[in-house]
Amino acid sequence: MPAVTAVIDAVTGMTENKVVTASLVIIGNEILSGRTQDANLTYLATSLNDIGIRMMEVRIVPDIEAEIVRAVNECRAAYDYVFTTGGIGPTHDDITAASISAAFGVPVIRHPDAVKMLATQYPGDKLNEARLKMADTPEGASLLDNPVSRAPGIQMENVWVLPGVPFILKGIFDNNKHKLLGGKPMLSKTISAYTVEGAIAAPLNEIQDAHPETEIGSYPLRRDGRMGLSLVIRSVDQAPIDAAAEKIRTMLRGVGEEPLEDGF
Amino acid sequence: MPAVTAVIDAVTGMTENKVVTASLVIIGNEILSGRTQDANLTYLATSLNDIGIRMMEVRIVPDIEAEIVRAVNECRAAYDYVFTTGGIGPTHDDITAASISAAFGVPVIRHPDAVKMLATQYPGDKLNEARLKMADTPEGASLLDNPVSRAPGIQMENVWVLPGVPFILKGIFDNNKHKLLGGKPMLSKTISAYTVEGAIAAPLNEIQDAHPETEIGSYPLRRDGRMGLSLVIRSVDQAPIDAAAEKIRTMLRGVGEEPLEDGF
Repeated sequence: MPAVTAVIDAVTGMTENKVVTASLVIIGNEILSGRTQDANLTYLATSLNDIGIRMMEVRIVPDIEAEIVRAVNECRAAYDYVFTTGGIGPTHDDITAASISAAFGVPVIRHPDAVKMLATQYPGDKLNEARLKMADTPEGASLLDNPVSRAPGIQMENVWVLPGVPFILKGIFDNNKHKLLGGKPMLSKTISAYTVEGAIAAPLNEIQDAHPETEIGSYPLRRDGRMGLSLVIRSVDQAPIDAAAEKIRTMLRGVGEEPLEDGF
Repeated sequence: MPAVTAVIDAVTGMTENKVVTASLVIIGNEILSGRTQDANLTYLATSLNDIGIRMMEVRIVPDIEAEIVRAVNECRAAYDYVFTTGGIGPTHDDITAASISAAFGVPVIRHPDAVKMLATQYPGDKLNEARLKMADTPEGASLLDNPVSRAPGIQMENVWVLPGVPFILKGIFDNNKHKLLGGKPMLSKTISAYTVEGAIAAPLNEIQDAHPETEIGSYPLRRDGRMGLSLVIRSVDQAPIDAAAEKIRTMLRGVGEEPLEDGF
C-alpha cells in the first residue's frame, strides 16, 4: 500500500504539507445500468474533505470479480485510501469480500468477531448460512463496526469495504472515520454572477494564472430563468482564496455584473 | 480502437450475438468533490441500453490532463465506445479537447465547421477567443451537432466527447445516437416482495445457478416503513427471464410471501 508518509502533527493528528488522497470503487450492475442512482459519492467526498482527504478518482464497476480486482488493485496502488461500496450482503451477487481477498491474494476466512456481531442481530437459527456469508473477510482484515445493522464493514490495509445502502454506509463510516489519517481540508469560496462563461473566460484565466495555489472552477447555472455561473475557488489555505476572490469581484464589476456571494 | 466486429443485420442495423460495450469518463473536480451530483450516467446508460449498448464501467476523474488521458486510453482499448462528459466550455478549466488530442497523440486544430456553427450562436465580436476555443478538436475528429447551444460534441474514433450540462448533453446525444452501432438490448423483469435477503438467499442462488443465461440482482428496499427487496432478472432474451421469474414467484410463495410485479 502507498504509505501515509507525511509527518503527523502531535497535537492535531493531522499530516502536514501532503495531500492525502482517496478513491472510490462503486460495485454494482444496478448503478451501471442506470436503475439506481448512486447516493454515496457526495457523502463520502464531503465527509473525507472535512478531515483533509481528497477524493481523486471514482470507478463504477459491474458485479464481476475480475473487474473489481482490477479496479481495487489499480486504485490501492495509486491513492492513500480506497473505499468500496456495495456487494457485501448475503445474496449470490454479493461478491465484494471474495473479490477483495482475490485482489490481495489471500484466502477468504469466516471472521469470528463478525460471527459474534451477526449473532446479536440474528438470534438462533435466523443466523443461516446466507447471513453468515456477511462474516466472510479477507484473511488479515479488521472489522468496521456497524451501529445500524451489525454486519460489519471491512478494512484490509488501505481498503475500506462499505455497504451500498446509504444509511448503513453512513453509520459505519461515521463510526470509524477516526481511524483515517487526514491532512489539510480543502477550503472553498463561491462567487456567482448573472453572466456567461464566454464573456469572462479570458480575465478569469488571467486570475487563475496569477494564483496557481488555487483551483478556480467555473460552473454554469440557471436560476429564475436567467443564465449565470458560479466560480468556485479552492485551496488548502484561506489567504490565496481571499486574494483570488477579491480579483474576481473586481473583474465581474468591470464587465458590469454584481458579484453574488455564497448562498445568494 | 476495438472494432465492432459483429455481423450487422441488413434490415435492423443491429449486430447479432455480441454484447456491444461502453464506458463513461466523467470529467470534473466538482463531481469528485461532491459539490455537484452527476446527472448524466442514468440517462446515457438507459438510452444506450435501448439500442443494445451496455455500460460496463464508469470513471470520474479530475480536471488534470494526465488523468483524463489515462482513463480515456484504458477505456477506449477495453470497450467498444467511450463517452466523456464535461470540460468542453470556454474557460481555463475546460481541457477535454486538448486531453483527447493528447490521448490520441494528434494536434489540436480549430475545426472550421465548428467555427461556422459557433458563428450562428455568437454573431460578430461575440465570437471571442474564449468561445472559439469551443471549436477546438483533435485533428481527424468529426463533429456531433448540438441542437441546443451550437457548440458541438466531438467524435474521435470510438470516443464521444459530450458536455456536462444535462440538457445540452441530451440534445447532442439524441441528435447523434443513430451513428452508434448497437446490439441486442438487455431486457429485464422486476419481482419484489416484503422479505429480506437473508431469508431467501439460498433458494435464490439455486435459481441463478439454474439460469446462467440470466443475471439476477437482489436489491433491498423500504416502502411504507416495511423492509423488502426487488429481484431484477436481466437477459438479452425474454424466454430465460420468464422461466427464472416463474421460479422466483414459486420460491417466494414457498416462504409465505406474495410476489409483487413491476410497478407494484
